[in-house]
Amino acid sequence: MKIEQNHIQDSNKKSLQSHQEQFDFLSNNLSKKGADVQGIINKLKDFQVAIPSWALGAGGTRFGRFSFYGEPSSLEQKIQDVGILHALTQTAGAVSLHIPWDIPQDYAAIKEIANGLDIKFDAVNSNTFQDQKDAKETYKYGSLSNTSEAVRQQAIQHNLDVINIGDKLGSKSLTVWLADGSCFPGQNNFQTALQNTENSLKEIYKGLPNDWSMLIEYKPYEPNFYSTVIQDWGTSFMLANACGEKAYSLVDLGHHLPNSNIEQIVSILMSKAKLGGFHFNDSKYGDDDLTVGSIKPYALFLIFNELVYGMQNNPNNPDLAWMIDASHNVKDPLEDLIQSLEAIQEAYAKALLIDQAELKAAQLNNDVVKCQEILQDAYRTDVRPLLAEARLKAGGALSPINAYRSLDVRNQLIDERGKHTVATGL
Amino acid sequence: MKIEQNHIQDSNKKSLQSHQEQFDFLSNNLSKKGADVQGIINKLKDFQVAIPSWALGAGGTRFGRFSFYGEPSSLEQKIQDVGILHALTQTAGAVSLHIPWDIPQDYAAIKEIANGLDIKFDAVNSNTFQDQKDAKETYKYGSLSNTSEAVRQQAIQHNLDVINIGDKLGSKSLTVWLADGSCFPGQNNFQTALQNTENSLKEIYKGLPNDWSMLIEYKPYEPNFYSTVIQDWGTSFMLANACGEKAYSLVDLGHHLPNSNIEQIVSILMSKAKLGGFHFNDSKYGDDDLTVGSIKPYALFLIFNELVYGMQNNPNNPDLAWMIDASHNVKDPLEDLIQSLEAIQEAYAKALLIDQAELKAAQLNNDVVKCQEILQDAYRTDVRPLLAEARLKAGGALSPINAYRSLDVRNQLIDERGKHTVATGL
Amino acid sequence: MKIEQNHIQDSNKKSLQSHQEQFDFLSNNLSKKGADVQGIINKLKDFQVAIPSWALGAGGTRFGRFSFYGEPSSLEQKIQDVGILHALTQTAGAVSLHIPWDIPQDYAAIKEIANGLDIKFDAVNSNTFQDQKDAKETYKYGSLSNTSEAVRQQAIQHNLDVINIGDKLGSKSLTVWLADGSCFPGQNNFQTALQNTENSLKEIYKGLPNDWSMLIEYKPYEPNFYSTVIQDWGTSFMLANACGEKAYSLVDLGHHLPNSNIEQIVSILMSKAKLGGFHFNDSKYGDDDLTVGSIKPYALFLIFNELVYGMQNNPNNPDLAWMIDASHNVKDPLEDLIQSLEAIQEAYAKALLIDQAELKAAQLNNDVVKCQEILQDAYRTDVRPLLAEARLKAGGALSPINAYRSLDVRNQLIDERGKHTVATGL
Amino acid sequence: MKIEQNHIQDSNKKSLQSHQEQFDFLSNNLSKKGADVQGIINKLKDFQVAIPSWALGAGGTRFGRFSFYGEPSSLEQKIQDVGILHALTQTAGAVSLHIPWDIPQDYAAIKEIANGLDIKFDAVNSNTFQDQKDAKETYKYGSLSNTSEAVRQQAIQHNLDVINIGDKLGSKSLTVWLADGSCFPGQNNFQTALQNTENSLKEIYKGLPNDWSMLIEYKPYEPNFYSTVIQDWGTSFMLANACGEKAYSLVDLGHHLPNSNIEQIVSILMSKAKLGGFHFNDSKYGDDDLTVGSIKPYALFLIFNELVYGMQNNPNNPDLAWMIDASHNVKDPLEDLIQSLEAIQEAYAKALLIDQAELKAAQLNNDVVKCQEILQDAYRTDVRPLLAEARLKAGGALSPINAYRSLDVRNQLIDERGKHTVATGL
Repeated sequence: MKIEQNHIQDSNKKSLQSHQEQFDFLSNNLSKKGADVQGIINKLKDFQVAIPSWALGAGGTRFGRFSFYGEPSSLEQKIQDVGILHALTQTAGAVSLHIPWDIPQDYAAIKEIANGLDIKFDAVNSNTFQDQKDAKETYKYGSLSNTSEAVRQQAIQHNLDVINIGDKLGSKSLTVWLADGSCFPGQNNFQTALQNTENSLKEIYKGLPNDWSMLIEYKPYEPNFYSTVIQDWGTSFMLANACGEKAYSLVDLGHHLPNSNIEQIVSILMSKAKLGGFHFNDSKYGDDDLTVGSIKPYALFLIFNELVYGMQNNPNNPDLAWMIDASHNVKDPLEDLIQSLEAIQEAYAKALLIDQAELKAAQLNNDVVKCQEILQDAYRTDVRPLLAEARLKAGGALSPINAYRSLDVRNQLIDERGKHTVATGL
Repeated sequence: MKIEQNHIQDSNKKSLQSHQEQFDFLSNNLSKKGADVQGIINKLKDFQVAIPSWALGAGGTRFGRFSFYGEPSSLEQKIQDVGILHALTQTAGAVSLHIPWDIPQDYAAIKEIANGLDIKFDAVNSNTFQDQKDAKETYKYGSLSNTSEAVRQQAIQHNLDVINIGDKLGSKSLTVWLADGSCFPGQNNFQTALQNTENSLKEIYKGLPNDWSMLIEYKPYEPNFYSTVIQDWGTSFMLANACGEKAYSLVDLGHHLPNSNIEQIVSILMSKAKLGGFHFNDSKYGDDDLTVGSIKPYALFLIFNELVYGMQNNPNNPDLAWMIDASHNVKDPLEDLIQSLEAIQEAYAKALLIDQAELKAAQLNNDVVKCQEILQDAYRTDVRPLLAEARLKAGGALSPINAYRSLDVRNQLIDERGKHTVATGL
Repeated sequence: MKIEQNHIQDSNKKSLQSHQEQFDFLSNNLSKKGADVQGIINKLKDFQVAIPSWALGAGGTRFGRFSFYGEPSSLEQKIQDVGILHALTQTAGAVSLHIPWDIPQDYAAIKEIANGLDIKFDAVNSNTFQDQKDAKETYKYGSLSNTSEAVRQQAIQHNLDVINIGDKLGSKSLTVWLADGSCFPGQNNFQTALQNTENSLKEIYKGLPNDWSMLIEYKPYEPNFYSTVIQDWGTSFMLANACGEKAYSLVDLGHHLPNSNIEQIVSILMSKAKLGGFHFNDSKYGDDDLTVGSIKPYALFLIFNELVYGMQNNPNNPDLAWMIDASHNVKDPLEDLIQSLEAIQEAYAKALLIDQAELKAAQLNNDVVKCQEILQDAYRTDVRPLLAEARLKAGGALSPINAYRSLDVRNQLIDERGKHTVATGL
Repeated sequence: MKIEQNHIQDSNKKSLQSHQEQFDFLSNNLSKKGADVQGIINKLKDFQVAIPSWALGAGGTRFGRFSFYGEPSSLEQKIQDVGILHALTQTAGAVSLHIPWDIPQDYAAIKEIANGLDIKFDAVNSNTFQDQKDAKETYKYGSLSNTSEAVRQQAIQHNLDVINIGDKLGSKSLTVWLADGSCFPGQNNFQTALQNTENSLKEIYKGLPNDWSMLIEYKPYEPNFYSTVIQDWGTSFMLANACGEKAYSLVDLGHHLPNSNIEQIVSILMSKAKLGGFHFNDSKYGDDDLTVGSIKPYALFLIFNELVYGMQNNPNNPDLAWMIDASHNVKDPLEDLIQSLEAIQEAYAKALLIDQAELKAAQLNNDVVKCQEILQDAYRTDVRPLLAEARLKAGGALSPINAYRSLDVRNQLIDERGKHTVATGL
């Protein structure tokens, strides 16, 4: 199914007047305080977040999985789902594929579907944390870091294949997430494992087209529970430097130890021109993969404050590959993603409201109270009218979640696909 | 010094019209959605938070202390400071004393000063974590839990003395925070330490006037770094049950292990009619004692959601003893406290906006997306006009922090007190 | 397959003399210091740990599962595996079944197999965290805590069925672990969820035979990632008290927030006669389910110190249901379990070496240095000869892991079962 | 006071025979397994750990300080204390001074005292986290990272002064620990703060004598509770690279977020030839500064495993500056330090027992069970006889803690110094 423009406009009608009042009032307030409201709305319109193909079905935990009706069962249907999200929100204009789950059978057809929905192909993701059916080598004891050269070669070749697939679709970056690590002290030699990983990444890097980036993800634990080879930003940064200028670190919000100051990591990576990608989600305990902004929205705002600052002050960073990397165990995945997109835009809009010059002055003055006031003033502002206006201008829904429900999207998907389809993915 | 009503009204003048517009617009919006705006404002006006006497000076860490000019150097001056806070915010109508730091020399005089500023005496706090100059026994190895009966007796007697002092001032509750615990495995016998503590608390409980409450605080670590005798809410709850119906648990936001779900603890304690007090602050790592709402404002909102629910549904809990327990290393303490009071009122107001009936319906329907929407709708609302209105109606400042600065309070205090006074406390 | 006594004795032969020397030397040393070596060996012999049926196959994570050759594919084969462990270690004399994974088809036959291997049936485990194929109701939104009475009834009935099955096999306790909780703020009403759980547990409790115990497990998170209904020992303890004297708390080492002092929890539960069961494993980050003693062996020792103390001083606790609850992603499950059993016995033996009278004296004297010396003296002792002696006397292998390998057990299992069998479980 | 050789020998007498038996038995066992016992003992003898001058008095927390009798009140007395530790343990042959607490008045005299006790001057420590009495600038808002150039200059000059003082005493390295950071979001611009720090460190680096090292410490929080400028090893490593080849990272065991894999950090820093120093202590919650090995001895062993590996395989690292950085709130500081020294030597000895070739073979074979067995075999060995033998050969006490007590050292110190002296420090 596809959501047509006129359906969205119909769904907007009854709220239009109310929206206009809210927006005018807020816009007026913000303009008085010196904010460039139109500039903010333009930035919100331009901000597009990729949806990973594996986030469109129900997620699971090691304790089981409760499926959801109407899941997409093919790549085409996944892209349709992203199209639905994008039509409603106008901020989901990209999809991030995972190989081998999403290998296209007909590239031209897939590209045509995506084009028709205004969806780009963002970073492609390789998978060396599971064994494929007829794989010669096993990743049980690691992939790019494995002590066996044959395993490393298989993993390297897989990444090169992924680049090749992505290239045909118009992707411009490869995301490498390694599950490599160890479950027990002594299992791995840390130095060897890192050296092998560095060597393997360099091999992959050699196969990168000139206009591509390689994004190196880090994670402190899971599925390995004693150590991971790329455990933190420092290791990722070191590897990116070793590979070259097209290699960057990728930050996933859930991949940090308790109490980490993630916004500082983001800021420092940007200051060194080495932040290449970003995975959004939220968490209370570990890599919980919850809806963005559902647990720690202020932390998300602080991160966006650094992102906005970096985009303005650190021109040597690439355009970031933004992606939502969440899982949905108890919600309709599309509704969950709509909530995530809303939270991202909200944090971005609030960060754009911060008067950077005023903040810098307060910092130079060591006026800590004022610094806090400036941040909180932006954060406490109810920016929903700005988000709605940006969507409206772009042809989206004033309230995507309400539109999704009133248009009865899920039931239409069930009608088309049946109840018991199962999406590939985690 | 004392802030006069007319000074506040003067400071409000230039923002009055703007406030009225903001308030009307918001009030209108909220009323349309079914909110009882006037009821919320009345609740905000009624909500009073105690200021602890030790929070009026600069705080320190074990690495040192950077002092602040114009600190209060006597109990009178401390109460004056609370008076300033209350005049501006109209939400700081109580002080919480710490013995022996705040033993009045002239009870009648102290009460008169407090009355004149509309300040009540909230819970009194005992101190058995430091040795006083001429103490016979040392608390180095514990107080109420100590293996020595003489030490325990001294600590019990101190608590009885504190009750006596509080009674003369009109306090109605005793807060017991124990630093007791151990720094090394084996140092303490856990069972003996807990049994001693229970026995000691029962002795203190016997000395409690009929209309008093005993509030038992818990904390997982610091200043002891291996174990604490009352490490968590479960232990505090067990002790409160052992003592009797006038004994309750007290929750301090900073006293939890990483990632604790504090709102659930609050909710469960209220359901058992055993939540007696609350210490506000914020933290990223441990008991950091930062300004309320400066790090995790959404968590504070979720806690208030449970408090509001409990106040409506669990009538057997006492009126809670609300207190700010923060420390101020880099801010003017009074400004810090104003920011804390604002954050508390904000979280409370937002929690009051939650439509509990709608939430319950969504919960029964397992509509998780809707549940989240309901909470986020309340949280995303900019409630500052409600807070300002409540303050205005009560005679406070529209913007307490701006008024504090424009009235040049700190400099007046320095003029009166001198630069190098030092407040008693941590 | 079954390991015959004479095979074990053969495998012991070449190490017998060396063992005797080691044991004599150690025994002599310990006796000089006043230890009752024979008493310790008897206690080690008596100490039996249950093996859960689901731990005999390869474990997995949400990212996948790497299978292992020769996994047991039936209940009979699972019990055979426990028989192998027990023959070698003489400390695995029980199995803990999980329903519905392990419903016997022929009770008499299963009991006969178990009897022949000297295996008892320990606690039976219910499963309300997954939906079974033809279930009427879904546990997606909870089981015993569900807002729907029909779901609760199904979950209650399942637990009663599990009791019935266990009863036929000679089990004497039911372990209830709930995955119930929520993934997002607002999803659950904490008070309702807990009240429903309490009511449901009471229903199950009514169906408990007189000589049975009900063990209530707690866990702070996973698979729910915002809240769990029974989040900590305090909640479990409260529920056990509400149910009655046959209800107890069960401690799983992996089910705690970072930095928890688990030994203190154990101690306090024992002092209140409410510790009923224990799940062993190890972890660095969360519920990692690693081999016991592989990450924090000293913490395990400290826990055993409290267990030993409690067994001596708190006679009102029941015989504890000891069980290993680990998962094995990169090791042969049987080897992993042998390592776990060894670590448990080691910690137990060391705890038995602590001179409790001397420790108490040092505690009373506040001689913290001495307290630590006493614990460390016991911990630093190499107790492996004691473990080997206890096994030898009981008919087990001097070195179970070496015997397992030299007897080529895994290959025999593969020959019998084939490579690609898959055990039921997580 | 000074402990004479003959006193130590007297105290050893009654245990000599028993020691010899233990040592012979163990030595024999280990030799059979292929260990080079004499080589290990030589390494133990060579391993010297610096005692920081501030660790010789009682420590405190922000909640207070319980003093200890007989504390050293001058630099001379501090060095005497180190002399006592070294005489007993033969592993404390260095002192680490802290400026301005330990500025010598008579360099020649101080050096003579130290020489007479066989004590070297290890790394010198600067202090820019406290304001000195007549300081022109305040470090309240940072030192090397401060936005004010005057403050940065003062801090740089202080470090240069410290180098100068250390140079006169024979130190060869400067340890820079910064408390710099922020307590609230927005207070600092992360990029500016880091850039200022880098520039300041480069200025200090310029003043470093050719044969000196600069050791850059990192810490995630405390005394700043929102951010620190050098929050992790990645930042420290980046700064060390920016400064030059004489700059290194320094690892303090307590300066990590919960659950950090410190041994991996150590290993990776060594592989990059950037590990320059090491601060020993132990902790359960944060930077608790407890006795080394008192909480997580296995983690210490795993760290030493990496250190031993690195010392053998990464020749480009400098000789490490080993130091104990603990605090003593409830123990006699000297006894505490003796326990720490013992724990360090124990971990080192056990790490030396690991058969690296066998471990590497097991790793290449992915024999995870075997890898664990190898590590645990070393760890489970009771190496105390090796430690005693190394001390004996070097002229130290068989049991330092017993000798310290039997020689009645503390009472002699009290007699000499009086009860109420207070050492400078935290």
